[in-house]
Amino acid sequence: MNEENKTAGPNFEHRLPAGDSLSRLICRDCGFIQYENPKVVVGAVCAWEEKILLCRRAIDPRKGYWTLPAGYMELNETSLDGARREAWEEARAKIEILRLIAVYNIPRLSQVQLIYAARLVSPDVAAGPESIEVALFDWPDIPWNDLAFPSVHWSLGHYREGLSQTDYPVQSNPPGELGNY
Amino acid sequence: MNEENKTAGPNFEHRLPAGDSLSRLICRDCGFIQYENPKVVVGAVCAWEEKILLCRRAIDPRKGYWTLPAGYMELNETSLDGARREAWEEARAKIEILRLIAVYNIPRLSQVQLIYAARLVSPDVAAGPESIEVALFDWPDIPWNDLAFPSVHWSLGHYREGLSQTDYPVQSNPPGELGNY
Repeated sequence: MNEENKTAGPNFEHRLPAGDSLSRLICRDCGFIQYENPKVVVGAVCAWEEKILLCRRAIDPRKGYWTLPAGYMELNETSLDGARREAWEEARAKIEILRLIAVYNIPRLSQVQLIYAARLVSPDVAAGPESIEVALFDWPDIPWNDLAFPSVHWSLGHYREGLSQTDYPVQSNPPGELGNY
Repeated sequence: MNEENKTAGPNFEHRLPAGDSLSRLICRDCGFIQYENPKVVVGAVCAWEEKILLCRRAIDPRKGYWTLPAGYMELNETSLDGARREAWEEARAKIEILRLIAVYNIPRLSQVQLIYAARLVSPDVAAGPESIEVALFDWPDIPWNDLAFPSVHWSLGHYREGLSQTDYPVQSNPPGELGNY
């Protein structure tokens, strides 16, 4: 998950466009209105038998920490396509998506995260360009103290709870949690 | 739901930034990279007793047709905040969100739609600036032939199915449906 977001060109100002209700970034040179909206992060808890796939981040923020294969959804793909693409890009993993685990809101970062449960089609995984290394962890061996983001903790916990329950509902942020770190 | 999206200034071109994997819109004048990502539409099926709130659109696309109160999520709000804001903006409705009904993907429009079930706090509703009129419909009286978008049909259907089932799961697009109209 890359949470950086370059938001404006060099000559943009915040101003209220005619007929709008919110101030927007507008280019002083050409008048272009840069509408900014939240971004969708798509990712998956990917399992091979009992083991969970994690990626150690090669990029900031949280370089060196472990995360799920996840990232920004791209134009003209579905959220499922995006989760499959990120698993390939970050861990060279081919996955089969099983179900939606959670919809998390990170309002400080203007993110909505859609996290799926998935099955690895094979245990052959390898670091993509945004990962230092990737690994399959038995549950007790997950590097809990070196996870990159609160939502990685949430996703793993909700995934685990869902394994033991039929009709486990789609989860959202734990009560009171906004995903800040 | 307003599905228009002004995407670029007057002097932008599509080009591959260094180190990126996808072509992006880049301003020839200042080098600003306009990252484009899917947008989140948040909305709700809002009920007062058995009646369903719909809004007749005052704006294109699909001006004159009926829709749910829904629209683009804004920065630094949660999806629930956004659904409540849209209900107020489009129908002057105060709502209590009950649960997530569905996550729909509309890849042609690069949209993810998060649709909630909600209860109207009172039956006092009124057209906001983007609505010609708003109304509360008994189920058989819903203007089925004059709904604005396929996802309005899906949302109403999934809402209705969920009323009669405990543990009704969060839904996604009906099989094979991509939301085109």
